[in-house]
Amino acid sequence: MSPPIDFYFDFSSPYGFLAAQGIDALAARHGRGVAWHPILLGVMFRTTGGAPLTELPLKGEYGRRDFARSARFHGIPEFRLPDRFPVPTQAPARIMLWLQATQPALAVPVAKAHYRALFVDGIDISAPDAAVAVAARAGADAPAARAAIDDPAIKEALKLANEQALARGVFGSPFVVVDGEPFWGLDRFDQVDRWLATGGF
Amino acid sequence: MSPPIDFYFDFSSPYGFLAAQGIDALAARHGRGVAWHPILLGVMFRTTGGAPLTELPLKGEYGRRDFARSARFHGIPEFRLPDRFPVPTQAPARIMLWLQATQPALAVPVAKAHYRALFVDGIDISAPDAAVAVAARAGADAPAARAAIDDPAIKEALKLANEQALARGVFGSPFVVVDGEPFWGLDRFDQVDRWLATGGF
Repeated sequence: MSPPIDFYFDFSSPYGFLAAQGIDALAARHGRGVAWHPILLGVMFRTTGGAPLTELPLKGEYGRRDFARSARFHGIPEFRLPDRFPVPTQAPARIMLWLQATQPALAVPVAKAHYRALFVDGIDISAPDAAVAVAARAGADAPAARAAIDDPAIKEALKLANEQALARGVFGSPFVVVDGEPFWGLDRFDQVDRWLATGGF
Repeated sequence: MSPPIDFYFDFSSPYGFLAAQGIDALAARHGRGVAWHPILLGVMFRTTGGAPLTELPLKGEYGRRDFARSARFHGIPEFRLPDRFPVPTQAPARIMLWLQATQPALAVPVAKAHYRALFVDGIDISAPDAAVAVAARAGADAPAARAAIDDPAIKEALKLANEQALARGVFGSPFVVVDGEPFWGLDRFDQVDRWLATGGF
């Protein structure tokens, strides 16, 4: 079996949320798995000079409209941009790294629960206790998840993962790498699909 | 018949070039025409704080790769990013405004010829004489086209068109507006298609 494709995302990225709904099925249609990589877009922005879309003139207003419209287009009409946006995402990202290392079968379900908490239920998952509560409802052990957020080894692992992503050229969310080929954005999933089908074009 | 949809583009935009190949057919499938609006992205960038993709760290390298890959994906493998990029596009934009006012049937064919000259043949259409030569090969009167580039009334019309586009929230290329609904990017053409089919979603 071919190696998994790489899926990079920030938990505060609306397009990352939409992409997370379909990435596993997209890869599976081509007999591939997915390696999920939570990243921190703020770190990327310091390198690329980027900024959250919603903070830019004109683009901000457009972005809010496009988030919701794209959610409806992709069959997720329950999407709602939270009152506080964007939010820091160390808490859910560290929980994911911890689960990947200890209970990998829970990692993606808990990640999807975090995304849904933020973009459907309006829960501020940047707060450690809120992130832990969401993870616990999805099956994770609450005290261990809370400890993972403050675990120096997991903090360091997340920093390292970000540096590795940047070194690989990742600068946005969602970002997919298929056999070395980089694709930025949910709107490149049609190209990802064809690349997986054909091995390149 | 419903009013035309609005298609905004900069002649130096690779994604605008790709979008220009299909926008008329896309609209026609829904019984709609297209109003072509050449704009100057530099003016937009001064408002939004944007910058040419190729000048940004990481995004620049990715952009060059994505331009060519997207061109292949959309069936235009002859695309080639010109040595000088981006280029100012007042010359082809003014020629288009002049043709729209005087020989509208020539305006889109000449615009497509300008795009192809830049992104297939590597001709620097920012040079007035080069832009005129391309327009002449596509059927325009060369001396009149050359005069149009320096015509104060046409210069003013292009400035005004840019201001009107900005006031409407246009900040990128390509940018489509369907019955008031804004869509940024070639990668929103799937949503444009559904919007035209359904009247909104």
